[in-house]
Amino acid sequence: MRIPAIDPENLDADLARGLAAALAAGAEAHGRTSPNPPVGAAILDTSGNIVGVGGTQPAGGAHAEVMALAEAGEKALGGTAVVTLEPCNHIGRTGPCTQALLKAGIAAVYYVHPDPNGQASGGAQFLREQEVAVVRINTSSRDLLPWLNSLQLGRPTVTLKFAQTLDGFTAALDGSSQWITGDQARRRVHEDRRQRDGIIIGTGTALADNPSLTARREDGSLHDTQPRRVVIGSRPISAEQAPNLHRLGFEQYPEISTALAALWQAGARDVLVEGGAGLASAFLAAGLVDNIQAYIAPTLLGQGHPVLANAVSDTLAGAASFELVSQTRLGGDLLLELKKKGSVSD
Amino acid sequence: MRIPAIDPENLDADLARGLAAALAAGAEAHGRTSPNPPVGAAILDTSGNIVGVGGTQPAGGAHAEVMALAEAGEKALGGTAVVTLEPCNHIGRTGPCTQALLKAGIAAVYYVHPDPNGQASGGAQFLREQEVAVVRINTSSRDLLPWLNSLQLGRPTVTLKFAQTLDGFTAALDGSSQWITGDQARRRVHEDRRQRDGIIIGTGTALADNPSLTARREDGSLHDTQPRRVVIGSRPISAEQAPNLHRLGFEQYPEISTALAALWQAGARDVLVEGGAGLASAFLAAGLVDNIQAYIAPTLLGQGHPVLANAVSDTLAGAASFELVSQTRLGGDLLLELKKKGSVSD
Repeated sequence: MRIPAIDPENLDADLARGLAAALAAGAEAHGRTSPNPPVGAAILDTSGNIVGVGGTQPAGGAHAEVMALAEAGEKALGGTAVVTLEPCNHIGRTGPCTQALLKAGIAAVYYVHPDPNGQASGGAQFLREQEVAVVRINTSSRDLLPWLNSLQLGRPTVTLKFAQTLDGFTAALDGSSQWITGDQARRRVHEDRRQRDGIIIGTGTALADNPSLTARREDGSLHDTQPRRVVIGSRPISAEQAPNLHRLGFEQYPEISTALAALWQAGARDVLVEGGAGLASAFLAAGLVDNIQAYIAPTLLGQGHPVLANAVSDTLAGAASFELVSQTRLGGDLLLELKKKGSVSD
Repeated sequence: MRIPAIDPENLDADLARGLAAALAAGAEAHGRTSPNPPVGAAILDTSGNIVGVGGTQPAGGAHAEVMALAEAGEKALGGTAVVTLEPCNHIGRTGPCTQALLKAGIAAVYYVHPDPNGQASGGAQFLREQEVAVVRINTSSRDLLPWLNSLQLGRPTVTLKFAQTLDGFTAALDGSSQWITGDQARRRVHEDRRQRDGIIIGTGTALADNPSLTARREDGSLHDTQPRRVVIGSRPISAEQAPNLHRLGFEQYPEISTALAALWQAGARDVLVEGGAGLASAFLAAGLVDNIQAYIAPTLLGQGHPVLANAVSDTLAGAASFELVSQTRLGGDLLLELKKKGSVSD
C-alpha cells in the first residue's frame, strides 16, 4: 500500500498549526539529540486542539512522539499525531514509537520525512495495518536535513560558515574583522552554533584568535547545549596562545578525514566549519562542503583577507557551484544559505 | 494648508489599481525622459475604472498627466488622477499639468513624490485652491528616485553594477567571466540598461572586451531606447580594438568629474558604471557611488579578478558602507541592491 501524501498548503488549519508546532519542537531539539535525529511531534485531540508537543530527548531519552503523548495523556485518544519523521518501528533503547501511538489510541498520523533507517522504517506501513490513517506531508524539516544527509554520506554533514563584506573579504588588511556583521547576524550565529554537534576551526585561527567556540546568548551567558570544539591541523595549540580553548576543552585532529571519522564515531551528525581561509579551502577542495552559510555585510573593502586561501579553479567553468537555498535579512546584513547540488534537501 | 497623506495599504482597491498602473507607466517611461522625470499617471472615472494611463514622453513631449487624460477623454470628468509625482504648475514647453487636470474636470488628485523643482512646485496647493481634493500617497516610485537624487546632487545619480561569485570575483584567473550569472540575471541587466541615460566603462574594459553597451532583448534585438555609451580614461580607443563602440558611437572623457559634468549638461540623470575594477575603485574613492547592483552567483573561485582594483581602507572601520535595499532571486542567482547611506530613497 502506498502512503498518501498531502501538500502543506492543503492541510486544514488545525493540522497546519500542528505541523508548525512539530517543526518548532524539532528546531528546539536540534543540537541535543545526535546521533539521533532532532524530531518534533504534536498531538491534536478529536476537536483539533493541540494537547501535546514534544521533541527528541538527548540520546537514551524519549523520542518526540513519546514526549508529546505524555503531555497529551488521555486527550490523545482518537486524536491525531503530526511528526516531522516517520514514527520508528524498531525496539531501540526506548521501544518503538508506533506502539506508543497505538497504545494512546491515536487515530491518524501525519509525518514529514520517511525514516531512511532500515532498522527503524516500516512505521507508516505498520500503523496502516493497525487501522491508523497515515499521511505523509510533502514538505521538509530543515532541522532534520543535516541528519538525513549524514546518513547518506556516512560522515557528519558539513556547513561552511563565514562572514564577509560584499566583495568577499572576511577581514581588513590590518586583520580587523570584529564585527563585519551586526547584532542580528551575531545572534543568529550563536543560535546556529547551539544546533550543531561540533564547531571546527584550523590551527591558525585557534592560535591567532583565542576563540571560545561557544554558543552564547545576548547577555554573554552560555546556551545550555554546546557543540564540540574541534581544531584541525598539526601545529600544537598552547594554553598560552589559546587559553579559552584550553579552559573549555577541545579536540584536535591532524587532518580533515580523521576529524570527520572521529566525530562520526562519537555521534556527531551536523558540524560547522568556521575557518580560517586555509581550512575552508581544504574542505572545499576535498568536496566536503555540503552547505554554506554566508553572512554578508553591505560594505566594500577592495582588499583584505579572503574567504578562501587557495584558488578553486583558474577558470569560471571549474568554480565550486552551489544552489542558493535562502536569503534572509538580518538587520542591515544578509544571510545566504547554499547547498551542494544533489544533497538531501526539500 | 497641509496636504493630507495616506499610506498605500489604506487606499481602496480602485485607487490601489490606479497607483499600480501609474507606477508601471513610470517604469515604462524610465530611460526615455531625461532631463525630465519618468512619471506615470492613471485616470479613474467616477465609478473607479481606469480609463487612461500615461507616462512622460521624451523631452519636449507631453507629461504623464496629459497622456493619461488624452486617453480618458470625457470619462475623466469628475474622476480621479493618480500620479507618481506632484503635478507641475509651471508653464514649460508643454503647459502646466495642473491646468490640464482642471480643464478635464478631475475632482481628486493622488500623487506620490512632492515636486522638488522650485519652478514647478506648488501644484498640489494650487489644485486645492481650485476645489480639487489632493492627497499624497506615502510610498515611492523606484523609477523616480535616481532623478530625485540627481536634483539634490547636481550630477547624474551613479549606480555601480557588477556580477560576481559569492567570494567577490568578477572573473576567473584566466579572465573568463562569461557568464558568471545566468539567463535571468542577464535579462535583468539589459532591462536595466534600457532605463539608464548612460553606461560608463573604463578604457581597460573598452579595449579588452570590445563591448557594445547596448540594451538588448532575449533574441538579441535592440530595445528601442538605448543609453549613451561612455568611456572614461585617457588611453585612445582604436577602432581595431573596440569595433563595436566605434560602430555604435561613444563618448570619451579623460576623468570622472569631466564625464559627469558633461553628462549632466547633456541631460543625463541616471547612469550605470559597469567597471572595470579600476574605474569602480575610482568612483568609490571619490564618493560618487550612489547605488550598487551586485549580481551574485552561488559559486566560489578562491582566487580571480576582484570587483575593485584598490583597497578602500586598511581597516574594517574604514570600509565603504552602504544600505541593503533589496535582495531578489533571479533564477539561481541573487541581485542585491544597495544605496549610499543618506541618499534619496523611500
